[in-house]
Amino acid sequence: MLEADFKYIIDTFFALFSMVLIIFMVPGFAMLEAGLVRTKNVSSVLTINVMIYAVASLAFLLIGYTLAFGSWENSNMSIWAAFLFQMAFVGKTINIMSGGVSERVRIIPLAIFAVIMGGFIYPSMVNISWGADILKDTLFDITMHDLAGSTVIHSTGGWALLAAILIIGSRKGRYVQGGIRVIPASNIPLVVLGAFLLWIGWFGFNGGSVGSISSVENANAVAKTIMNTNTAGLAGAIIAGILMYIRYKLFDITMILNGALGGLVAITAGPDLFNMYVPILVGAIGGALVVFAVPVFDKFKLDDPVGALSVHLVNGIWGTLAVGIFVPEISFMAQLKGVAIVALFAFSVSFVILYLINKFVPFRATDDEQQEGMDVNECGVEAYPEFKRAM
Amino acid sequence: MLEADFKYIIDTFFALFSMVLIIFMVPGFAMLEAGLVRTKNVSSVLTINVMIYAVASLAFLLIGYTLAFGSWENSNMSIWAAFLFQMAFVGKTINIMSGGVSERVRIIPLAIFAVIMGGFIYPSMVNISWGADILKDTLFDITMHDLAGSTVIHSTGGWALLAAILIIGSRKGRYVQGGIRVIPASNIPLVVLGAFLLWIGWFGFNGGSVGSISSVENANAVAKTIMNTNTAGLAGAIIAGILMYIRYKLFDITMILNGALGGLVAITAGPDLFNMYVPILVGAIGGALVVFAVPVFDKFKLDDPVGALSVHLVNGIWGTLAVGIFVPEISFMAQLKGVAIVALFAFSVSFVILYLINKFVPFRATDDEQQEGMDVNECGVEAYPEFKRAM
Amino acid sequence: MLEADFKYIIDTFFALFSMVLIIFMVPGFAMLEAGLVRTKNVSSVLTINVMIYAVASLAFLLIGYTLAFGSWENSNMSIWAAFLFQMAFVGKTINIMSGGVSERVRIIPLAIFAVIMGGFIYPSMVNISWGADILKDTLFDITMHDLAGSTVIHSTGGWALLAAILIIGSRKGRYVQGGIRVIPASNIPLVVLGAFLLWIGWFGFNGGSVGSISSVENANAVAKTIMNTNTAGLAGAIIAGILMYIRYKLFDITMILNGALGGLVAITAGPDLFNMYVPILVGAIGGALVVFAVPVFDKFKLDDPVGALSVHLVNGIWGTLAVGIFVPEISFMAQLKGVAIVALFAFSVSFVILYLINKFVPFRATDDEQQEGMDVNECGVEAYPEFKRAM
Repeated sequence: MLEADFKYIIDTFFALFSMVLIIFMVPGFAMLEAGLVRTKNVSSVLTINVMIYAVASLAFLLIGYTLAFGSWENSNMSIWAAFLFQMAFVGKTINIMSGGVSERVRIIPLAIFAVIMGGFIYPSMVNISWGADILKDTLFDITMHDLAGSTVIHSTGGWALLAAILIIGSRKGRYVQGGIRVIPASNIPLVVLGAFLLWIGWFGFNGGSVGSISSVENANAVAKTIMNTNTAGLAGAIIAGILMYIRYKLFDITMILNGALGGLVAITAGPDLFNMYVPILVGAIGGALVVFAVPVFDKFKLDDPVGALSVHLVNGIWGTLAVGIFVPEISFMAQLKGVAIVALFAFSVSFVILYLINKFVPFRATDDEQQEGMDVNECGVEAYPEFKRAM
Repeated sequence: MLEADFKYIIDTFFALFSMVLIIFMVPGFAMLEAGLVRTKNVSSVLTINVMIYAVASLAFLLIGYTLAFGSWENSNMSIWAAFLFQMAFVGKTINIMSGGVSERVRIIPLAIFAVIMGGFIYPSMVNISWGADILKDTLFDITMHDLAGSTVIHSTGGWALLAAILIIGSRKGRYVQGGIRVIPASNIPLVVLGAFLLWIGWFGFNGGSVGSISSVENANAVAKTIMNTNTAGLAGAIIAGILMYIRYKLFDITMILNGALGGLVAITAGPDLFNMYVPILVGAIGGALVVFAVPVFDKFKLDDPVGALSVHLVNGIWGTLAVGIFVPEISFMAQLKGVAIVALFAFSVSFVILYLINKFVPFRATDDEQQEGMDVNECGVEAYPEFKRAM
Repeated sequence: MLEADFKYIIDTFFALFSMVLIIFMVPGFAMLEAGLVRTKNVSSVLTINVMIYAVASLAFLLIGYTLAFGSWENSNMSIWAAFLFQMAFVGKTINIMSGGVSERVRIIPLAIFAVIMGGFIYPSMVNISWGADILKDTLFDITMHDLAGSTVIHSTGGWALLAAILIIGSRKGRYVQGGIRVIPASNIPLVVLGAFLLWIGWFGFNGGSVGSISSVENANAVAKTIMNTNTAGLAGAIIAGILMYIRYKLFDITMILNGALGGLVAITAGPDLFNMYVPILVGAIGGALVVFAVPVFDKFKLDDPVGALSVHLVNGIWGTLAVGIFVPEISFMAQLKGVAIVALFAFSVSFVILYLINKFVPFRATDDEQQEGMDVNECGVEAYPEFKRAM
C-alpha cells in the first residue's frame, strides 16, 4: 500500500471520529441551555438548538463551504470527511449567540440569522483566518495562531451575541428598580450533562483541528492537543469552585461548569503549542475571568441567561492573546491584530444583519409572551406538562 | 507489514467505532420514548428498552448470528468486531415495535417476542437480504440495494409494530366518542436528547454498513455515506418545521424531531449511492411523509404514541424505493420486490408469533392498570416519585 | 512508512478513542447518582462528580502518573495519549466511593480525599499491579491477571467506600427502630442514561486496556474483549430481572441496571481470556451477587444509596477470582493473593486517610443539614427549583 493511501485512509477516519465528537455538542448545547432556562422556555430553547443545527449546516453545505475554502477539493483526506468536520463547527457560533438571548427571542428571525451566519458570515471569518484567505497580503491579513477557534468560533459567536443583546434587550423582569432579579436554572442534571457533552466534543474540536494524525509527529500533536484541552477545563472548574467558595461559602455548580467551559474556550487557540503545565494557568485564568465577568455584564444590563459572553467572548479573546504571551515563537501583536479584526468584522456585520432582520421580523417577544413563556407561544408544546410548578 | 494485515486492523477498529456509535442508540431510543410517554409509564418504557437490548442481543449471540450468516468466520476483520457490529442492529427492530405499543404493553410477553425476533425473525430477514441468502436463485431472491436497512431494519420493525397494534389495540382513552384525545409528551429535553443520540448512532449504522474503510475508495464511500445521512436528517427536520408552521403557526419540536428521524430512515437504503444534493430531496420528502402520515394512522385508530409507523414503516418503504428512483443503475422493480417480500414475511411472521404469544401471555394491560400506570403495576418503581403531578 | 510508525499512529488513535469512551463515564456516574438520590441532594451529588474529575485528574497529572509509571516515556504510542488513557481511570475509584456515601457527605473533605486518592493511593495501586512495580520479587509481588481493574479499580474503590461508610455512618433516617426506610430514586430516566453511558465507557475501559490494536492478534484481542465485556453486562441485566420477578413479580429497573453493572465489573479482570460463552456465566453470577448482596449490606447497616458495595466491591472480587476459576493457565492462588493484598492496602490506607481528614474536616453533614438537603447547604443551588415536591 502506498504511504499516501495509508495517510488518506487514517486521516479520513480521524476526521470522521473528530466530527462525531463535535456533533455531541449539539445535544450538549441543547441540554446545557434547557437546564439553565426556566421551564416555561425549555421547549423553545430546544427547538432553537435543533433548528440552528439543521438550518446552518444546510446553508454551509449549499453556500458556506465554497465561500470559506474556495473549492470542494482536498488532497489529504476524503473531501466528504473534510466537509463534515468543518460543517460540525458552523452551528457553534450561532449556539453561542442564541443561548445568550434565551427566554425572550423568537424562533423565525433567529432561523433567518442562522442561514446568513451559516451561509455567509461564519464562512467569511473562516476564509480570512483558516481558509482561502482573500485578505492575504492586504492590511487586514490575519496571521494569528488560532488552532480551533478561540477567536474564529468563540469570539465571533460572542460578538454576534453582544450585538444581539444590544438590539433585543434584556428579559422582562430581569433588571428591576436598579436591582437584579435572580432567575435560577430549572434543571441542574441537564446542565451537567450538557457541559460534559460539550467537554467531550471539545476533544474532537481541538484534536481534529490539528488536521492529520497520520504521522508520528501529528499523532503526538493530536494527543498533546487533547491533553492540554482537558487540562485547561480541569483548571477552569477548580478555580471557579475555589472562588465561589471564598466568596459565598457555597459551590455553585453552574458557575463551576461555566468556569470549566471558560478554560476550554481559552485553551482553544493554542493547545498544540503549550507544554503540559501552561494550560493549567491558561485555564485557571479562564475560569476566574468567567467568575468576575458575569457580574460585570449584569452591571451593564447585558442580560445573558447562560453566561455566554463571559465564557465565549471574554475567554475567546483571552485564549488568543495567551498564545502570544506564553509561546515565544508567536507574535503577541499578530494575535492582538487577529482579535481586533475579527471583533470589528464579526460585531459590525452581525449588528447590521440583526438590525435589518429585526426591522422586518422582530426578535423580541412581547412582555406578555415572555410572562406566559416562549413554549406556549412559539412551540405549542410544554416541556414538562405533568409536573406541577412551585413558582 | 502486509497490506492485508493493515486492512484487517483498520477495518476491525472501524467496525468497533461504528458499533459504539450504534450502541448510543440504546439510550437514544430509551430517552426518546421516556420523554414521549406519560410520567406514569416512564419506568416501564425504560425497563422495556433495557430488556430488549439484553435479551435480543444474547439471543443473537446464541442463535441469530449463525442463522443470519451461516458461520462464525470473516476474513476482512476480526470476527468479534463483525459480530458486535451486527449485534448492535438487532434490538432496533424490536425498539421500533415496542415504542409504538407503549403505555399499554406488558413486559413479559414483549421479552418473549424479543427472544424470537433477535434469535429467529430478524436473522432470517438478514439471511435473505444481506447474509447467507437461502433464497438465492429462487423466485423470492432479494436483490434490492438496502445499504443499512431502510427495509431490513426499519420496515421490518414497522411491520412488526403494525401487527402488534392490530393485536394489542389502542391505549385506553385515546379514541373517545369519535375524537382523538391528545396525550402530550411528558419530558421534552429527553425527547431531544434521545433523538440526537439516535442521529449520532446513525452515522455508525450507515457509515459502518459500507463494511470497510481501508482503501481510498472505501474511505470516500464511508465519508460520503455519513455526509448524505446527515443531510437527509437536516432536510427532514427543516421541512417538518416549515409544515408545522404553515399549518399551526407553531414549531412542534416533537414533530420536527420525528421529521429528522424520518429523513434519516429514508436515506438509510442508499446513502452510498446518491450525490450530495439528492439526500436533501429524499430527506425532505421523508420529513413531510411523517407530518402527513401521523394523522392518517390516527384516523385508522392505529394508536402509536411515538409515531414509529410514520417514521420507520412509511419512510423505510419510501427510502428503499427512492434508491430505485434516483439512482439510474438500480432497478426500481428490484427495490419494490424487496420491499414487498420483506413486508409479506415480516408482517405475517410477526403477526402469527405475536398472536400465539398473546394467547398464552396477553400483551395488553387491563384498563385499570393503564389508568394507574404501567410503572406501578409492572416495575414497582415510579419514574419521578418526588414531583407532584399537575394532571 | 515504517511498520513501527504505523503501529505508533494507530495505537495513539486507538488510545484516544478509548479515552474518549471512558470520559463518557464522567457524565455516566453523574447522571446515575443524580437519578438515584433524592431531589434535595442532586446538585450536591453532581458537584461532587464534577469536582472529583477535576481534582483527581489534575493530581494525577502533577504527581500520580510519575508515581505509578516511574517516567513520562512510552515507546509504542504518544506519551500524551498514554497519559490521557490512564488519567481517564483515576476518578473512577473515587466515584465509586463518593456515590456510596451520597446524601450525607460534605464536598470539601471529599475534595481533599480526591487529591490524595488521585495523587497517591490509586497511583500506588497501579504501581504494584500494572506499573513500575516496586514490590516486584518481594513477598507482596502481585502477579494476578486483572486486565482493566476488577481489583485495581473496582475493589479499590469499594474498599475505600467501606472505610468511608464505617467512618461517616448511614444517612439520617435510613435505619429506624430496627427497620429500613425505603428511599426511592428520584429520576429514573437519569439512572438509565447514566448506566448506559457507563456501559459504553466500559468498551473503552476494557478494550483500551489491551494496550494496542495495531497487529492482527491485538485487533482480535480488543474486539473479543469488547464482545465479552458486553456479554457479561447483558447476562447481569437478565439475571437481575429474572430474580426480581421471581421474588417480587415486579421488574425493578434500578436493580436490573445494577445487575448489568455488576456483570460489567465482574468481567473486567479477564475479558481478553475467556471464550465467547464464559462471560454469560461470569456476568450472570455477577448480576445475581448484586441482587443478593444489597440486602446483606443493609442488614449490617452499611448504608449505600447507589448499591456501590454490591456492584463494585463484591463483583470486583468475584471477577478477579473468576479468571482463576475459568482460565486454566491462570493460577487461582495468584488471583486470590492479588485480591487480598489490594484489599489490605486499599482498605487500611483509605481508612487511615479518611479518619485523619475526618478529624479536621468532618465528612458528615449534621442531621439538620441532611434533613434540609445537601443542595441548599453546600451548593446554594436547588436541582429542580420550579417543580413542586410531592414528598
